[in-house]
Amino acid sequence: MDPGPRVLSYAFGALASYASSLLTAAGLDGDKPAVVARLLVTADAMGHDTHGLAQLPDYLDDIVAGRMRATGEPEVLVDRPSACVWDGRTLPGVWLVDRAVRLAATRAQTHGLCAIAIRRSHHIACLAAYLLGATEQGLMAIIACSDPSEAQVAPHDGKHALFMPDPIAVGIPTKKNPILVDFSTSITTAGMTARLRREGRRFPGLWALDAEGRPSDDPTVMPGGALLPVGGLDHGHKGTGLAWTVEALTQGLSGYGRADPEHGWGGSVFVQVLDPALFTGRAEFVRQTNWIADAHGAVLPRDPRRPVRLPGAQALAGLRRAQSEGLTPRTDTMAALAAWAQRLRVAAPTPHG
Amino acid sequence: MDPGPRVLSYAFGALASYASSLLTAAGLDGDKPAVVARLLVTADAMGHDTHGLAQLPDYLDDIVAGRMRATGEPEVLVDRPSACVWDGRTLPGVWLVDRAVRLAATRAQTHGLCAIAIRRSHHIACLAAYLLGATEQGLMAIIACSDPSEAQVAPHDGKHALFMPDPIAVGIPTKKNPILVDFSTSITTAGMTARLRREGRRFPGLWALDAEGRPSDDPTVMPGGALLPVGGLDHGHKGTGLAWTVEALTQGLSGYGRADPEHGWGGSVFVQVLDPALFTGRAEFVRQTNWIADAHGAVLPRDPRRPVRLPGAQALAGLRRAQSEGLTPRTDTMAALAAWAQRLRVAAPTPHG
Repeated sequence: MDPGPRVLSYAFGALASYASSLLTAAGLDGDKPAVVARLLVTADAMGHDTHGLAQLPDYLDDIVAGRMRATGEPEVLVDRPSACVWDGRTLPGVWLVDRAVRLAATRAQTHGLCAIAIRRSHHIACLAAYLLGATEQGLMAIIACSDPSEAQVAPHDGKHALFMPDPIAVGIPTKKNPILVDFSTSITTAGMTARLRREGRRFPGLWALDAEGRPSDDPTVMPGGALLPVGGLDHGHKGTGLAWTVEALTQGLSGYGRADPEHGWGGSVFVQVLDPALFTGRAEFVRQTNWIADAHGAVLPRDPRRPVRLPGAQALAGLRRAQSEGLTPRTDTMAALAAWAQRLRVAAPTPHG
Repeated sequence: MDPGPRVLSYAFGALASYASSLLTAAGLDGDKPAVVARLLVTADAMGHDTHGLAQLPDYLDDIVAGRMRATGEPEVLVDRPSACVWDGRTLPGVWLVDRAVRLAATRAQTHGLCAIAIRRSHHIACLAAYLLGATEQGLMAIIACSDPSEAQVAPHDGKHALFMPDPIAVGIPTKKNPILVDFSTSITTAGMTARLRREGRRFPGLWALDAEGRPSDDPTVMPGGALLPVGGLDHGHKGTGLAWTVEALTQGLSGYGRADPEHGWGGSVFVQVLDPALFTGRAEFVRQTNWIADAHGAVLPRDPRRPVRLPGAQALAGLRRAQSEGLTPRTDTMAALAAWAQRLRVAAPTPHG
């Protein structure tokens, strides 16, 4: 996909400070501004720029309007050693999920694994950004998320939408770079669809249905039409099975979802961390994953113009490059933030280079 | 897919007894013959007939040749309350996984969740068949499996095979029928490919690569070529991410996989059971899943000739029909079993109707 217009480059830290200052000025308390800011800039650096700073203007809107709770803690509904449930009380989802990954990582190191279901989280942005918090400690993490107020994805063979893109992410340590899996269980996301629609472009395949259920590559069928599940017209029962899995883990275990009449933006989240050390051992785990990573890296490309990439390799390379050389956010995103900076009297960062 | 030639109908119990007698005569001890037989016939009844009785002749071969261990118990390598590892010692995989689902279900009811990784299991056949053991108790189950000796599936954009079809199954209770998700993370399986090849048929889409990495709908490209991951040429990075997840959960956590030089048939398994009662409650869980099931059932079909089906609905209907009316196995499967029955001096069942 075209990354959109980009002109000015900024240091990673400068962008994170800017985002953090905006969130502080809007009213987020404690470590919430710094955590949310760091993870949004991480998402941009990883190339997931529909789920990075582009979300910040909406977050600021929601803080000001009271739709995102700015202060306090989640309510702990269940606190077992390996099984927890939190009510997120519409607190910032990025902060909640980062906190859940950290707690689950700590608990997994005592019990082997720990799962945390969160209800009523605000939006959680880019799932891949959280995975490093686990993989850097040698842990495997699984994160899934659904928003019960959203229906954009048709079930296989269905004519209209039922599910949301229901993303799932998995972090897998190796001896070298971790494997970072992060994908929606629909072929494409609502964010990407909106962007293509704005830019007058098409999907690269029949990724959607129009309002009459006819397959289409036209992003303007949304809203009104439906996105197709992973596997598309050909084998979309697999994507529908994944959507079911995500919705059960997130809404079923948190006890909050589509069956409830009132929803805000955000939704239900499932976080699970496993510690290989308490199964057969970290050395044994990475002996296998490293072998597979090396074998994957040695697979020749089908088309020399399309290199074979390990899941997360591009995202990690982007993150490292951004941390050392800075990054160039989209100009439309920076313009939207500049309007907020003026309103909240926050100084905009100085581009470099 | 064409279900193949079928003529004679048998009672479910008669087929299960027949399979059990064959396995007993071949040397399996204790409850192994009855458990393996019941689950293979369940797979046939569910419509997964490449992974039901069709596997039994190979199992009998392997018992006689000593490749499937006929007697004894798995070695317990790790036994934590919520995290276990077993060495399956090439015992019957169907029996091992059924046992693992039962133990994980018991542990999950105390701790909220329990995961068991199994190394060196023999073949585990149809994953969906195990799920009812959890969902009938109101529990959610996740089962994944990989065989480190097999490489049939290319990673996305790759020219040759690295992974196996790496199946994953998820059982989700509702107030009515459970949702039974069961799919390979490649578009199709090795078993289905072999069957289409024997029958001179084609894949319904570009589901494979030939030995030069060219997309193909011809099942004779296997062996030598590669199957494509879920998402295919269009969005196969998602299937590759799933394959990585399955291989890490199964081979990484069990500490046995592709990095090991010697393999038998079968492989590494991951079983996890979650008890919604120890998260926000079973009533809360099924309140959500039942709402989604009802909404899914109400989605109109895109094409009136292809009804919208909930995951597992057809399998469950087939199982119930088979249990009340009997089932008609493929004649090639029954012929292969008849040869074994003669050799092992086991009486063949009487067809009914």
